[in-house]
Amino acid sequence: MADSRFFTVAGPFTLAELAKIAGATPAGTVDLDARYTDVAPLDHAARDQVSFLDNRKYFTAFLASQAGVCIVAPAMVDKAPAGMALLVAADPYRAYARVAQAFYPAATVEPWRAPTAWIDPDARIGEPCRIEPGAVIGARAEIGPGCVIGANAVIGEGVVIGAGSRIGAHVSLSHALVGRGVTIQPGARIGQDGFGFAMGPEGCLKVPQLGRVIIGDAVEIGANTTIARGAGPDTVIGDGCMIDNLVQIGHNVHLGRGCVIVAQVGISGSTHFGDFVAAGGQAGITGHLHIGSGARLAAQAGVMRDVAPGETVGGAPAVPMAEWLRASAMIGRMARRKPG
Amino acid sequence: MADSRFFTVAGPFTLAELAKIAGATPAGTVDLDARYTDVAPLDHAARDQVSFLDNRKYFTAFLASQAGVCIVAPAMVDKAPAGMALLVAADPYRAYARVAQAFYPAATVEPWRAPTAWIDPDARIGEPCRIEPGAVIGARAEIGPGCVIGANAVIGEGVVIGAGSRIGAHVSLSHALVGRGVTIQPGARIGQDGFGFAMGPEGCLKVPQLGRVIIGDAVEIGANTTIARGAGPDTVIGDGCMIDNLVQIGHNVHLGRGCVIVAQVGISGSTHFGDFVAAGGQAGITGHLHIGSGARLAAQAGVMRDVAPGETVGGAPAVPMAEWLRASAMIGRMARRKPG
Amino acid sequence: MADSRFFTVAGPFTLAELAKIAGATPAGTVDLDARYTDVAPLDHAARDQVSFLDNRKYFTAFLASQAGVCIVAPAMVDKAPAGMALLVAADPYRAYARVAQAFYPAATVEPWRAPTAWIDPDARIGEPCRIEPGAVIGARAEIGPGCVIGANAVIGEGVVIGAGSRIGAHVSLSHALVGRGVTIQPGARIGQDGFGFAMGPEGCLKVPQLGRVIIGDAVEIGANTTIARGAGPDTVIGDGCMIDNLVQIGHNVHLGRGCVIVAQVGISGSTHFGDFVAAGGQAGITGHLHIGSGARLAAQAGVMRDVAPGETVGGAPAVPMAEWLRASAMIGRMARRKPG
Repeated sequence: MADSRFFTVAGPFTLAELAKIAGATPAGTVDLDARYTDVAPLDHAARDQVSFLDNRKYFTAFLASQAGVCIVAPAMVDKAPAGMALLVAADPYRAYARVAQAFYPAATVEPWRAPTAWIDPDARIGEPCRIEPGAVIGARAEIGPGCVIGANAVIGEGVVIGAGSRIGAHVSLSHALVGRGVTIQPGARIGQDGFGFAMGPEGCLKVPQLGRVIIGDAVEIGANTTIARGAGPDTVIGDGCMIDNLVQIGHNVHLGRGCVIVAQVGISGSTHFGDFVAAGGQAGITGHLHIGSGARLAAQAGVMRDVAPGETVGGAPAVPMAEWLRASAMIGRMARRKPG
Repeated sequence: MADSRFFTVAGPFTLAELAKIAGATPAGTVDLDARYTDVAPLDHAARDQVSFLDNRKYFTAFLASQAGVCIVAPAMVDKAPAGMALLVAADPYRAYARVAQAFYPAATVEPWRAPTAWIDPDARIGEPCRIEPGAVIGARAEIGPGCVIGANAVIGEGVVIGAGSRIGAHVSLSHALVGRGVTIQPGARIGQDGFGFAMGPEGCLKVPQLGRVIIGDAVEIGANTTIARGAGPDTVIGDGCMIDNLVQIGHNVHLGRGCVIVAQVGISGSTHFGDFVAAGGQAGITGHLHIGSGARLAAQAGVMRDVAPGETVGGAPAVPMAEWLRASAMIGRMARRKPG
Repeated sequence: MADSRFFTVAGPFTLAELAKIAGATPAGTVDLDARYTDVAPLDHAARDQVSFLDNRKYFTAFLASQAGVCIVAPAMVDKAPAGMALLVAADPYRAYARVAQAFYPAATVEPWRAPTAWIDPDARIGEPCRIEPGAVIGARAEIGPGCVIGANAVIGEGVVIGAGSRIGAHVSLSHALVGRGVTIQPGARIGQDGFGFAMGPEGCLKVPQLGRVIIGDAVEIGANTTIARGAGPDTVIGDGCMIDNLVQIGHNVHLGRGCVIVAQVGISGSTHFGDFVAAGGQAGITGHLHIGSGARLAAQAGVMRDVAPGETVGGAPAVPMAEWLRASAMIGRMARRKPG
């Protein structure tokens, strides 16, 4: 059960209700009127709780689980331990997400202007909004209704934030237009100067960074991630992008819709991603490249050339995934071979 | 045109004025008295705006551009589309930097002590300075004239900041002496404890970190970058260094003058860089090394030995660049070869 | 000598006292009553100061050092320059740590509630505690005695912090239970949402993150490091772990006791480390793995499989260290070979 110091649980829900919420089909030992009080991991779940099995690594935990209900893929129907009700879904993790959201709905926004927040009189703030202590909101900023501006966050002059967005503690946001339903985790830095300067014998000459950061709707940006504003063009993050922690996004980068960027990835200036590109943790992408829609970049890949739509690449310098795996295996064989 | 919510444009300037500012020579369809109102990227620029061509990847955009003036290298003089005036410079990007600075000069510092800033009565602050809301300035700190201390920044006891420096929102700065004309982007962490401890069977014993961070003049430090103070010696960042976002600089590191450190680089403790070293994104350099002046470290390089002045290395473990490229090509060929 | 603007030195201590503090044996030119005033690096130390030699790279500096006392390993006893007293210890760095701690003991906590701090009336704060300007402490948070909450730090609702912990400036801490004697460096982000969502054709569906972050005693967490809270299970950091700057720790990760995680490492969700695992800088570890106690992961390693207790791995994909070194050497030889 989630720690009540931090979480408030809704429910209970009957199995029939859960099936409807999950978009799943009951199977196994089923009592549609049985009531369930919470979600829990397989190894902690009790008889009145709901769990899920998505990754085969947890199959043993599934077999030993005391969960009253488990959300599973069709192939698992015959394998459940006795006494466990099942909710069968093609995508168990997605079905679980819906159930967990039902038990733990997003908190409503309690309107507040904390006394220690600094709000410029020329800022326009919708209702309801919650402005937490120490937040700073600059002149002519426009914040839509239903937003939370976290403690000690700094929203620069003229920044626009769409309705229902949640800006975490300590975020700094400048030169940016942010969509609706956006979540920005604590400490993200968005809109500061890009790394633009002209080198020369007399030293570096700074190039004014004159673009913005344009963030679409339903984007999530991770903790301590940095997104530079454009140098002239804008930096653009498409609708529905999910960006993890400590990611670096350079000036003029464009991400299409629904890209997934795992932690510590670095994307250099002016590179464009199509839609639904996935970049694994610590991958690095050099500047001025085009990465096609649906491309996949392996963790730690070093991408130095354009990637075609749908292509999967790995290694550094990155090559087609199959080639990288073959090269790695070959090198391993050679290194293990006894010398002479 | 830059978004007027965030930027204020100066000018207009005549072509004659722009040539002088840029240090460039007019060519093509030239009217020295024609007036230009702004800078813009090639694909957005209008007839009364100035653009530039520096990277050949944008040659097609150049050919299609509506820019009234374009700053180009000498080799491009014959290739401009009809009706475009040219400003010819050996280094078009540097010439553009000067023009863009003329259109967008750095804002003057409007003196302010925000009411929610906390300024220790024993801090010494020059005039004019702008201390934004929520900033915290410790006892005996000394801040020169013409500085901006961003919203919610924290300047520790005894820290010295030279004239004309700009400290971004949320920066923390302790145990540090900072030069003149330094820019620190939001969320940088400078002067905290280095990673110094003695391991042993009874656990780790912390080693007091007794040095400082010494930052030269005209340095730029990126968002969320971390620079540990020295353990006994100081950590030193030379004049004119440009450091990107999310860079890690360990205790006792010395960077010479004009080093360029791209995002997500990590430099381990006690490593010394000469002058004008360039480190590509995500490169990692182990501790106690010497990297000679003018050396270049490729993106994602894993540098585990000293690097000679002027040497270029790549790969992990890093080797001379030509060798790394040859090895990568060789591995690729072997992996693509059909199994016998 | 450490800069008195930032540090206050205790002492002086006699050689006899220093030997006792260090747990070391005097040797060389010894006057047990001679008094020493400070610690200093080999190349800066004066006659009345104490230095140490631990890394052989500094042997030349040792030979030239003016230090009055040097802490050394037994093998160095015969090699000291004339006039230098020695303190001989099996682990000179650990002995130095004790001496440096004697000269620079941790500052006592001066109780303070800064007027610009925001402390919820339902928070419980022990005595003495120092709450610096702009800090924000949420409802029902519990902070033990002897803690420092740094300037502009944000402690979320219900967070528990054990006695004697020091939370740096700008830290954000939510959904977390923190042990005793913990140090968190500036800008660390702890307890925010993990990167948990279900992908699908209609876009990403966020999975509520219902766990916590549990941090043991005597843990140190570096600047701008990010630790996501658990998704259902908790994220756990064992007693005595040392975590450097800009590290990413995903949801549900468990670290055993005394792990050492160097800067810019990324550990993906649900991976478990045993005790005393060491991960070198920029190493990346994928999710759902088990890394055995005492394992060592080389800098920049890309770990994609379980690692046995005590095993050392390197490279990407990571393999046993000896194999990686052999492969690297082999590739180098092949690349340097003249084309036939």
